[in-house]
Amino acid sequence: MTAAAATGLGSVAASQVSASEYPSGPFWNNVPDPDLSKSTLPNFKFELEKSTGRVDGGSYGKEVTVEQLPISTGIAGVSMKLQPGVARELHWHATAAEWAFVISGNCRTTVINPEGQSETNDFEPGDVWYFPRGFGHSIQCLGNQPCHFILIFDNGYFSEFGTFSITDWIGHTPKELLAKNLGLPASAFDSFPKSEVYFVHGQPPPAQPALPHRGHLVSPPNTHKYKLLAQEPHATFAGGREWLVSEREFPISTTVTGVVLELEPGGLRELHWHPNAEEWQYVLGGTISVTLFGAKGRYAIESFQTGDVGYIPQGYGHSIENTGSEKARVLIGFNTGLYQAIDLSEWLAGNPDYLLEAHFNQKPDVVEKFPKRDVFIATGKPI
Amino acid sequence: MTAAAATGLGSVAASQVSASEYPSGPFWNNVPDPDLSKSTLPNFKFELEKSTGRVDGGSYGKEVTVEQLPISTGIAGVSMKLQPGVARELHWHATAAEWAFVISGNCRTTVINPEGQSETNDFEPGDVWYFPRGFGHSIQCLGNQPCHFILIFDNGYFSEFGTFSITDWIGHTPKELLAKNLGLPASAFDSFPKSEVYFVHGQPPPAQPALPHRGHLVSPPNTHKYKLLAQEPHATFAGGREWLVSEREFPISTTVTGVVLELEPGGLRELHWHPNAEEWQYVLGGTISVTLFGAKGRYAIESFQTGDVGYIPQGYGHSIENTGSEKARVLIGFNTGLYQAIDLSEWLAGNPDYLLEAHFNQKPDVVEKFPKRDVFIATGKPI
Amino acid sequence: MTAAAATGLGSVAASQVSASEYPSGPFWNNVPDPDLSKSTLPNFKFELEKSTGRVDGGSYGKEVTVEQLPISTGIAGVSMKLQPGVARELHWHATAAEWAFVISGNCRTTVINPEGQSETNDFEPGDVWYFPRGFGHSIQCLGNQPCHFILIFDNGYFSEFGTFSITDWIGHTPKELLAKNLGLPASAFDSFPKSEVYFVHGQPPPAQPALPHRGHLVSPPNTHKYKLLAQEPHATFAGGREWLVSEREFPISTTVTGVVLELEPGGLRELHWHPNAEEWQYVLGGTISVTLFGAKGRYAIESFQTGDVGYIPQGYGHSIENTGSEKARVLIGFNTGLYQAIDLSEWLAGNPDYLLEAHFNQKPDVVEKFPKRDVFIATGKPI
Repeated sequence: MTAAAATGLGSVAASQVSASEYPSGPFWNNVPDPDLSKSTLPNFKFELEKSTGRVDGGSYGKEVTVEQLPISTGIAGVSMKLQPGVARELHWHATAAEWAFVISGNCRTTVINPEGQSETNDFEPGDVWYFPRGFGHSIQCLGNQPCHFILIFDNGYFSEFGTFSITDWIGHTPKELLAKNLGLPASAFDSFPKSEVYFVHGQPPPAQPALPHRGHLVSPPNTHKYKLLAQEPHATFAGGREWLVSEREFPISTTVTGVVLELEPGGLRELHWHPNAEEWQYVLGGTISVTLFGAKGRYAIESFQTGDVGYIPQGYGHSIENTGSEKARVLIGFNTGLYQAIDLSEWLAGNPDYLLEAHFNQKPDVVEKFPKRDVFIATGKPI
Repeated sequence: MTAAAATGLGSVAASQVSASEYPSGPFWNNVPDPDLSKSTLPNFKFELEKSTGRVDGGSYGKEVTVEQLPISTGIAGVSMKLQPGVARELHWHATAAEWAFVISGNCRTTVINPEGQSETNDFEPGDVWYFPRGFGHSIQCLGNQPCHFILIFDNGYFSEFGTFSITDWIGHTPKELLAKNLGLPASAFDSFPKSEVYFVHGQPPPAQPALPHRGHLVSPPNTHKYKLLAQEPHATFAGGREWLVSEREFPISTTVTGVVLELEPGGLRELHWHPNAEEWQYVLGGTISVTLFGAKGRYAIESFQTGDVGYIPQGYGHSIENTGSEKARVLIGFNTGLYQAIDLSEWLAGNPDYLLEAHFNQKPDVVEKFPKRDVFIATGKPI
Repeated sequence: MTAAAATGLGSVAASQVSASEYPSGPFWNNVPDPDLSKSTLPNFKFELEKSTGRVDGGSYGKEVTVEQLPISTGIAGVSMKLQPGVARELHWHATAAEWAFVISGNCRTTVINPEGQSETNDFEPGDVWYFPRGFGHSIQCLGNQPCHFILIFDNGYFSEFGTFSITDWIGHTPKELLAKNLGLPASAFDSFPKSEVYFVHGQPPPAQPALPHRGHLVSPPNTHKYKLLAQEPHATFAGGREWLVSEREFPISTTVTGVVLELEPGGLRELHWHPNAEEWQYVLGGTISVTLFGAKGRYAIESFQTGDVGYIPQGYGHSIENTGSEKARVLIGFNTGLYQAIDLSEWLAGNPDYLLEAHFNQKPDVVEKFPKRDVFIATGKPI
């Protein structure tokens, strides 16, 4: 019997009740990551651009997964460069959605969804795409300059046995089956590739997208493209600014929120934590220092340069400071479509002075000078 | 601080944001199945009807869980036959929902939900039921012919310690407690069964459902019954046809989608994958060949006969071909209420020719003959 | 291709489809707890108030997690007493939401959410709070009597490395960074605590809540407080009564439902199970006997006194009986915001007599005396 039944109130069927973002459930959801259950914090830095990765001529893909950075169970990343005329072949990820940010150059993607709707999009630096888990897609360099972009996956284990390539699939399928499937003679497949191509070499695509093979467009209701850096920053301070894209601004991106954080020299993204997501960092440019707090006295500070990757587990306290002499930019991905953060300054400002004085064993003169609003990005000047 | 707070836009409380079907979350959700992380594909076939199972006179239950077929972590199945006068006793599953398809004969179910609402339904061949996890239910053979049906559970581990039977429960409960609970003298329970009955032997039930003990109906808002094969097929082609029931058509079935795929001799359910679900197959009749693609060159082909079970992990490429001389029918279950599939032909049709030519290293004459629409079921004739 | 595409019906984008409470998904969600997969039931009792816990003067916190009670993977609990002038310091839980029930005395909480909104609330016995995972909060004893309350966490592993305290964080952060973050000279932090304070000793707070440091209120849309025992019980019977608060009555409490069950001497909360949640019990007063049924003949009976904790896994059959001579009260928490239960009597009442007679091998005279409505709380008298 339910409460409603006992009181005579109307009942709510289970299927009508919205689930919270992280439903309680099977006990494995609660079992902590052994790497986060030790007396010291694990390493949270990987020098991605200094790694070798998969190289094919001037094109490459360098990845950071739990293999390279064991702490990064929730999010993996790839730095990929495509030379003119090269495409990352048609493929899908069985175990992860893909979010991307273009650093330099131009590229064109194609993507298909389970409704059979497809989209072709052109990207320039500062643009973002999102492909839900299992959607088939390709990425081609556009124009005669290489294209460099960062891929973020909402699963730190996405790589091994998780990427399904069309040439690998077709190359292993009997020709007779392909012939029946596609209405062609079996001999038509004699010269198809027999194993995974990965980087397809061809001509640069036409400047304007060609119609798909079916001859007309069948477009999805939600676009896969978002022009992140073309937007007004969502937060602007003397010490820096930030662009942010979540499911709210980009409805298809239900499992990833992306951020570009720009810090002036000395600028500090203040102490904060994210209640509902892991954080994956890639330094687009500059030198930063990241602090990490893991409860029970566990504390670490790490320095990052351009091309380095950092990782912050869900709920862990952290800060990001530009310790160089130039502007710094950090690309950040969260494994949630719903962005959440709590900043130290606004937490303090939400509590009464007498309570803060007791906590820190201070007289009123210090606590009364605490900021009265959210600092977000600090410069060291009085607030 | 959130983006909305910084921009002055309204805020969205966490509880108002709808969750995506697979929320990112605790890291265990990402850890891959070790059986799917080897260099070759695991076995994905089990000859269910050739197994012995649990036999009681002419009634039986044969099951396939991770015990019999380790790859089937997401879905388990049971083939059950009830003789006239026999009932599968009142029970519930603590760890799985139950979806069923009636092959032959007739049966009657009773089910109760947490609102205290109950439903009695009669089933004939081609009908389907769905009982959410934990709902108490029974199944009785109806009429004087045996009833044969297939049960699908949305958990490959559902069986061991997951099925709770009323006679097992009451048989172990002290008589004094039962007496207090039900307002009867303790001696009334002297002759109750002391352990699990499982198959209850009695008389065939009346042709028309009797009122429940409470004397009147208290019906749930969403019915537990769907007449699948009485519907128009959702897809009809020269090579076969398919019936499908998801949460869209059958609202209570939030965690299972069911399909009956009928293939003419030589008919091919083309190469495709399901981005969001595992697939469980039971051959209702005929001989089929299933291909399975698991990325990184892993490929397998397997033949199935009537009564055999197959399993396709989420996101894995596969096809189903009728290799016999008669019509073939396959019962298929997915562990999602939201059906998703992407077919090879429609993926190709959604990409421009020049890109496909580069992928397969072909001249335009082959690629231009690729189908321009979704093939779904092929016959080998030009499309 | 989807069913909708094939039939020409409109399509539903994945993001528009509501998730069921427990989506099917990664296989780990299905792997059973090894402790529940043995031939006998594990221990489900812990004498919480007899344990020592963390003591600081007259204040203490005693916890029961998987460490003390391995079966309790889904829910942990803490009994905490704060002496006048003592506060449980500002902290957050990275891996759990917190639900609380006040037993005696008064207290005041502060809490901040990711929108930067904060709330201060005063509590008296019978009141409840809920802080979503990751929300920063504090708890102060109010007045000159100690305050005793029970905390429930929706994660049995919440404790170790899961609680983040502000003094631990600030004490490990370089003074220069704190200075920049808060706009104060570094020397201002010389005398801050260097490690976790946990219990803050100060003066009792003012009778009326003070404004927060920011000088004005910025209140959340959903309150964190619910006056449970001030409500009418949702169920009242001769043998006892029950108060219940779920997400329905208390919208912010999306992952916990709480109950106070009051039983007269001899009163029995009848045999029942919860399809969608684990159950955590704390005896507020009296002596009770709990039966537990775990399928496959696994059955146990345990006696509990004031201050003892019990645990019922999801879907397991159980009952609670007052075996003492005084009223008994039990505080119960479920790890779901959507309360579900199925009672034996209403299940029986939802089935036809002839089927029950066959199950229990009885003549009509016994079955016809079964209750015709939900018993919920029994007294042993005819119903």
